[in-house]
Amino acid sequence: MYNYELIKKFVTQVFVKIGCNHEDAEKGAEILIAAELRGIPSHGVLRLKDYLNLWEKKRINNKPNVKIVYETPSTAVVNGDNGFGIMVAPKAMNIAIEKAKSVGTGWVSVNNSNHFGIAGYYAMMAIKHDMIGITMTNANPLVAPTYSIDRLLGTNPIAVAIPALNQPPFVADFATTPIARGKLDVMHRKGLEAPIGFVQDKYGKPSTNPNILTEGGAILPLGGDREHGSHKGYCLGSIVDIFTSVLSGANFGPFVPPSVAYLPVKDISVGKGTGHFFGAMRIDAFQPANDFKKQMDKWIETFRKAKPIDGQEKVLIPGDIERELEVTYKKNGFPLMESVIKELKIIAEKYDIPFFE
Amino acid sequence: MYNYELIKKFVTQVFVKIGCNHEDAEKGAEILIAAELRGIPSHGVLRLKDYLNLWEKKRINNKPNVKIVYETPSTAVVNGDNGFGIMVAPKAMNIAIEKAKSVGTGWVSVNNSNHFGIAGYYAMMAIKHDMIGITMTNANPLVAPTYSIDRLLGTNPIAVAIPALNQPPFVADFATTPIARGKLDVMHRKGLEAPIGFVQDKYGKPSTNPNILTEGGAILPLGGDREHGSHKGYCLGSIVDIFTSVLSGANFGPFVPPSVAYLPVKDISVGKGTGHFFGAMRIDAFQPANDFKKQMDKWIETFRKAKPIDGQEKVLIPGDIERELEVTYKKNGFPLMESVIKELKIIAEKYDIPFFE
Repeated sequence: MYNYELIKKFVTQVFVKIGCNHEDAEKGAEILIAAELRGIPSHGVLRLKDYLNLWEKKRINNKPNVKIVYETPSTAVVNGDNGFGIMVAPKAMNIAIEKAKSVGTGWVSVNNSNHFGIAGYYAMMAIKHDMIGITMTNANPLVAPTYSIDRLLGTNPIAVAIPALNQPPFVADFATTPIARGKLDVMHRKGLEAPIGFVQDKYGKPSTNPNILTEGGAILPLGGDREHGSHKGYCLGSIVDIFTSVLSGANFGPFVPPSVAYLPVKDISVGKGTGHFFGAMRIDAFQPANDFKKQMDKWIETFRKAKPIDGQEKVLIPGDIERELEVTYKKNGFPLMESVIKELKIIAEKYDIPFFE
Repeated sequence: MYNYELIKKFVTQVFVKIGCNHEDAEKGAEILIAAELRGIPSHGVLRLKDYLNLWEKKRINNKPNVKIVYETPSTAVVNGDNGFGIMVAPKAMNIAIEKAKSVGTGWVSVNNSNHFGIAGYYAMMAIKHDMIGITMTNANPLVAPTYSIDRLLGTNPIAVAIPALNQPPFVADFATTPIARGKLDVMHRKGLEAPIGFVQDKYGKPSTNPNILTEGGAILPLGGDREHGSHKGYCLGSIVDIFTSVLSGANFGPFVPPSVAYLPVKDISVGKGTGHFFGAMRIDAFQPANDFKKQMDKWIETFRKAKPIDGQEKVLIPGDIERELEVTYKKNGFPLMESVIKELKIIAEKYDIPFFE
């Protein structure tokens, strides 16, 4: 098990070494570690190698000038200046929060960014301001709309964080597909089959091959097939794509710059980089914050007390699992895959930074 | 086939007869007919009988004073004064639109309302103002969260309408469950089985009985089961519930006043009536409206040109089917079920209004 402070320090040092300013470096490290602590290692330090690769290829800007390029009292478009998404996104979310302070809500669409890690982190930034936080991003085109062979959407996650009083906050953070791409990788490495309803082959036929994305196959939208509502998952993924890219001027759908090797970099671009969308709604723009939070406690308690199906321990509130892991992992350290440790050691040597072991 | 103008006139007369003002009556009729024209008869004139029943039982206010009770420049809470949802909702959406005109976006949470029919109608109201429209409502508690036996959520739909330039608008309007309740009724009447993944029995076991809701069974969240992402559908339904009720002070989840006979009216209430949520985002709060709409055309054309799976004619854009039906039904009339015609005739006699045949 690895201590989160040590690894955060290590990752910060790496980012500083490649020229990021200290504040950005520390924030970026914090966000990668947040994914580890919340049990989403696919968005954790595993990503560091990819991020550094992009920087080495001069495909990412280590000193972005993140700025508002268009705005009204409640909205803004932010240009991420091709920075690391984990450094662009917290700044954009802070702009949404500032706007909410002033007129009740703030909505920021971001262009010219890159992979931003764990969506829920940014939504949760709103909570300490007594606000509801909302995050979306588009992503690698690997999802086929209902009836489509072509891969036109990303797994396009939505995160929503809502504060309560004595209860912990409600934190939903989910891809608009049955599974995230990272989980297919894990199944493939373990030699497992994917259940029907996760992916299709390059002809659009249901498949159980978790490695099918490397062979022209696609992830299905949430719902799986038309009968079970995949058109609703397709709607959700599309809404995320439009809010993050068409509103901001980023690349939409199939034109999102890929971050996996088996997707070709497109010759044409229809916008700037990857797109995100951030929202902040001040609770007391709707009613006294304390009244709302008391009622949220009641909402959470009602759902927590629901009778579970035989064989299930309890009904969960969105965010429960991640929060419980975070407590344990902060206290006892968190696990890192052998392969990730190996990568980090190589990075340590390459950038001449003391390793944390 | 029935002429929509004739039926709209009939329904308007009925609402006027029970004391609604003419403007509300006409708007309410228009919204019920909009559902028929868009091929969603479960939210059409079929509902008139239920609405009148509620009025006869003095459970609904035919002359509501819909008003803002709390606000900031970009937000409001509206009290629907226990009016018909189809008369409260257009007023609340207009408030969101006015706020967007002034500060870029407008967000309105509504308490003390009732069933509001077709969600997409209100989202589409934003389009002619060059705005993105968003609508949500909570509903009869008939959906069980993942792992739950208890029915704590409604089918809680989300609608999002986005304008384009030469292409028709993108209009998504979907329940956060694999199917809407009305479709289970149709299956039951036809003697069909429901596919696995739609409902569970009162013990939480998968069921194929489309009538299971009358026996303590529940609709499943979008995704169907945990493995296929039902926890994501549960998140979505919860977000809709919280935005429409906890933000507004309406009843949440299991306390939403039921509109079906097999759900008991609860002894306790945790808020006022049913809740809705409306959003309007001015396109030119993010970028010049024309640039956005041109890019939306490109988005739509890209998705429309996607290669369809063998046996499928084409990849659809959200709203295509409904829009095509609307054109046909406006021109040639639309179908009404024999049982609905029978109900309308009884209403005509009871309220002494000339029938439209």
